[in-house]
Amino acid sequence: MDKKILGVDWGTSNRRAYLVDQHGACLAEHEDGLGMLAVGGRERFSGALAGLLETMDVGREVPVIMSGMVGSASGWQEVPYLDSSVPLRELPAHLAPVADADWAGRCHIVPGYCHRDGGAVDVMRGEETQLLGAVALGHRDGWLVLPGTHSKWVLLRDGLIQSMSTYMTGELFAMLSAGGTLSSMMGGDASDVEGYAIGLAQARRNEPLSNTLFRVRAGVVSRSAPAAQAPAVVSGLLIG
Amino acid sequence: MDKKILGVDWGTSNRRAYLVDQHGACLAEHEDGLGMLAVGGRERFSGALAGLLETMDVGREVPVIMSGMVGSASGWQEVPYLDSSVPLRELPAHLAPVADADWAGRCHIVPGYCHRDGGAVDVMRGEETQLLGAVALGHRDGWLVLPGTHSKWVLLRDGLIQSMSTYMTGELFAMLSAGGTLSSMMGGDASDVEGYAIGLAQARRNEPLSNTLFRVRAGVVSRSAPAAQAPAVVSGLLIG
Repeated sequence: MDKKILGVDWGTSNRRAYLVDQHGACLAEHEDGLGMLAVGGRERFSGALAGLLETMDVGREVPVIMSGMVGSASGWQEVPYLDSSVPLRELPAHLAPVADADWAGRCHIVPGYCHRDGGAVDVMRGEETQLLGAVALGHRDGWLVLPGTHSKWVLLRDGLIQSMSTYMTGELFAMLSAGGTLSSMMGGDASDVEGYAIGLAQARRNEPLSNTLFRVRAGVVSRSAPAAQAPAVVSGLLIG
Repeated sequence: MDKKILGVDWGTSNRRAYLVDQHGACLAEHEDGLGMLAVGGRERFSGALAGLLETMDVGREVPVIMSGMVGSASGWQEVPYLDSSVPLRELPAHLAPVADADWAGRCHIVPGYCHRDGGAVDVMRGEETQLLGAVALGHRDGWLVLPGTHSKWVLLRDGLIQSMSTYMTGELFAMLSAGGTLSSMMGGDASDVEGYAIGLAQARRNEPLSNTLFRVRAGVVSRSAPAAQAPAVVSGLLIG
């Protein structure tokens, strides 16, 4: 009989599930908006997972491995972060069994990582599983960039996390677009190349973001810069 | 007969009016939430000003001088920015008469300032009137800090604006408190001295704000830092 597992990337806003056979081939996948926030409470994850299996027509005998915010304090069950001195290859030995009696023995949560560098602390939940995938594909060394709402830059050395920095790039862009002083000029094309380059160049000067963001507005209202370029400049300021 | 003027600081969210006699004494003042956004449209400023005079029992013969966003493109009438090479003392010569026939000759708007420093542009509307007040009180030289939603640092030299930088400090703090990743930990005391000092020290290292803000969250969820201190740390990061 073929062995299968169901991998679930259960994040804050979305969940993505992949049914994988013993050779690593993906047999089926499913994505929906039933992320941690939409599930809405610890006691509702069991039903949400049962619904996912039903939707994907996956039997209850298939082991389930979940990563992401499902293992946070606001998720199904809080799983402590691993220290970054633990190699990614050892993640399988640190899976946390789900305590819920309905799922005992069949369902595990991948722990996130915590990295301490002097006084600075950074954390991830979910990205460690992507990093293990990179390691499995042979990328054991070098920088990996995981863009998104919270972009992460991770330096791997021999399959160990050496450095980890998270940037709230996507979240800040969304906030500035949704309301406040800049939002009225955020309707343009954020991928405008010239505006993006201007933002990157300004970011390189290392001035405070609270000032450079206002200067985007000052440029537009003083007619020194085109409003249509503003979102691309902001994008460059945040990413740069 | 005593001469009087009514000065109105008409901003984005609020308006403040001061009835002043010829000796500079304040005879009456009024503040309400009928800022530019609440007035809601160019053609409604005339009525909004008439209402203010009625509320304050000020006769229509009293000259009105208005500063702030009332002179912006979204205000009553757009008044071009003065270049910062124009001394603050010359502001009275640059008042823009309100074109509205109901107010002709009796009502003026103070222009804002635009300061260009190489490629960087910054602007103000309303603060120039406060700066003129400072100059009138003898403060013709040195740094003036005008804290708020958009904090401004202004360097005066002999009553001229030499340098001007605006920081969206208050706006970013409000955004981060209202929603998103940090908001759940922003309920504490933003004036906690220790947390504020931590934020200031981090800000001094000149690291990207999108990263240092996330690290506030990482510190809390990894139990390395108390959640109650988070708002004060964020405050220090933004102000520092």
